[in-house]
Amino acid sequence: MPTTHVLPRYRIAVVGTGAVGGYYGGKLAYYGRDVHFLIRSEEERAAVKRFGLQIKSKKEAFRVARVNAHAATDTIGPCDLVLIALKATANDALPALLAPLLGPETLLLTLQNGLGNEEFLAERFGAERVLGGLCFVCLHKTAPGVIAHQGYGNLSLGEFAGWPRPRTHDVAWEFKRCGINARVVADLAEARWRKLVWNVPFNGLTILADAARPPGSPPVSTADLLADPDLSYLARRLMDEVIAAARQLGHAIPADFADTQFKRTAEMGAYLPSTLLDHRAGRPLELEAIWGEPYRRAFNAGAEVGRLETVYHLLRRQTVSPVASSGPGSVPP
Amino acid sequence: MPTTHVLPRYRIAVVGTGAVGGYYGGKLAYYGRDVHFLIRSEEERAAVKRFGLQIKSKKEAFRVARVNAHAATDTIGPCDLVLIALKATANDALPALLAPLLGPETLLLTLQNGLGNEEFLAERFGAERVLGGLCFVCLHKTAPGVIAHQGYGNLSLGEFAGWPRPRTHDVAWEFKRCGINARVVADLAEARWRKLVWNVPFNGLTILADAARPPGSPPVSTADLLADPDLSYLARRLMDEVIAAARQLGHAIPADFADTQFKRTAEMGAYLPSTLLDHRAGRPLELEAIWGEPYRRAFNAGAEVGRLETVYHLLRRQTVSPVASSGPGSVPP
Repeated sequence: MPTTHVLPRYRIAVVGTGAVGGYYGGKLAYYGRDVHFLIRSEEERAAVKRFGLQIKSKKEAFRVARVNAHAATDTIGPCDLVLIALKATANDALPALLAPLLGPETLLLTLQNGLGNEEFLAERFGAERVLGGLCFVCLHKTAPGVIAHQGYGNLSLGEFAGWPRPRTHDVAWEFKRCGINARVVADLAEARWRKLVWNVPFNGLTILADAARPPGSPPVSTADLLADPDLSYLARRLMDEVIAAARQLGHAIPADFADTQFKRTAEMGAYLPSTLLDHRAGRPLELEAIWGEPYRRAFNAGAEVGRLETVYHLLRRQTVSPVASSGPGSVPP
Repeated sequence: MPTTHVLPRYRIAVVGTGAVGGYYGGKLAYYGRDVHFLIRSEEERAAVKRFGLQIKSKKEAFRVARVNAHAATDTIGPCDLVLIALKATANDALPALLAPLLGPETLLLTLQNGLGNEEFLAERFGAERVLGGLCFVCLHKTAPGVIAHQGYGNLSLGEFAGWPRPRTHDVAWEFKRCGINARVVADLAEARWRKLVWNVPFNGLTILADAARPPGSPPVSTADLLADPDLSYLARRLMDEVIAAARQLGHAIPADFADTQFKRTAEMGAYLPSTLLDHRAGRPLELEAIWGEPYRRAFNAGAEVGRLETVYHLLRRQTVSPVASSGPGSVPP
């Protein structure tokens, strides 16, 4: 068994071939890496086997013609690197899914959103194996095996349990050699908080604003949010709150960070966050990873997070526990 | 001209004959007081002239057969006491409406919700004239001239610009002699904040929860709110925040106040706050009086009001400035 940082060739598994797993795994496979995709949906698997995995983009369009598509992880067997790209809401399935993929030095790289995913893996498989990656990319699946890539694509990755090591850079270079703009971050937790600084307000408030509109309305985009004086003000106040919480947790966030985020968001145009699309499509929301866990950590550190608390609970009741009505109330019709 | 505290008989105007003006003015008229109602709607005025003003209740039902119904305040002329029961959102109409009613010692008693109404009157007509009243009553209009009284009915009143005076007690006694459980409060501002402690969370969160449900759903009552773990938790946290803000503004709120409010709310059953009914009926919401002005005062005093800020802006954009969509966003259909 080679030591992890001199692996000449990775055997790679992709667990969760949604838009993120399909895109990053697809790039690796397109550049000739030995990639094995877990595709549990029979329809999706059949489409991928027949037509390959297609990534469509303004800048690039490619097709992975021969895809190693597996119905279960048993047929994949032990790998050197596992990309985990399931929704965080499906984490309960991970222990069973990952078991067949694990060798003594298998690295687990979670590409999932928000906080808590590295910890989930570390508790079950040991912190030593765990890496985390943040995907700065706009993707969505348009059909089985077809992923639309709208822009960006950077990947920031780091070690869960310490500073970057040779193996961290090896993994990053493997992505870079396959056309992915990957970089190693010194502090993964800080990188996650920096991403949350945007996700908490923009993903959260577009969902809340969208849910309050009549059915059939077009979705509330980031441009709509910025154009609305109340939502835009709230987004900024919520962002400032998340930044203050991150700082209280010991993360260094630069003074102009919020200004930069708003400027970039304005430049992005009418973007629809993936969680908004999930919510509109009735798919489960990564509520705990993006809002719940950051809220609890900030709250437990003594940070003032009243706005985050309000947004978290309003989202939670809309998506997890909608009120049952006790009837028409005490007013006669 | 008699001095204000020995007025043997008040000439009373009611400006705004909605549910509150009709109920309290109706009681005064039913007990023989000289009450003049401003009823600007022609349909409503015709109904009241023909059938009288009817109050229907489980505990009491009465009809004021001969009502002094006026289309404008010019025909009423100067009064000793003016009950102001317009929605706070219609305050801009008050200067013109009140001018014909004012004699040198006319008292203006606003029965409106929230903060800012006494100040509005004081700036235009002098603080000396202004009293405020808090109505603890469940009412709604069921037809022109017909008011359903669901319960309660207490009236707390006080001076805007100082401690209670003989005239304050005179006004309270005039209500008491007409079957209204009126009391004088030493500190009107404190009484207003105590009422807001309930109104801010329960009126606000029932509206937000209601707006996020599919059209045609039954309204979200206070009982629904209490039964929902997220809304109920948020209501308590928001209430605690409003109490802390009120204390920071110098108002004494007892330690068990929030507990008592929740206990009483549970006892009330499935109550639908009037602002929720307003919102569902498409009527303007008393947004600034109940949320905006309390938020600004608390914020300016340095209180932490992130929850109130969030609820205020979410309500504001739903009711005042709903987002215009810039189109379908950047995701193809």
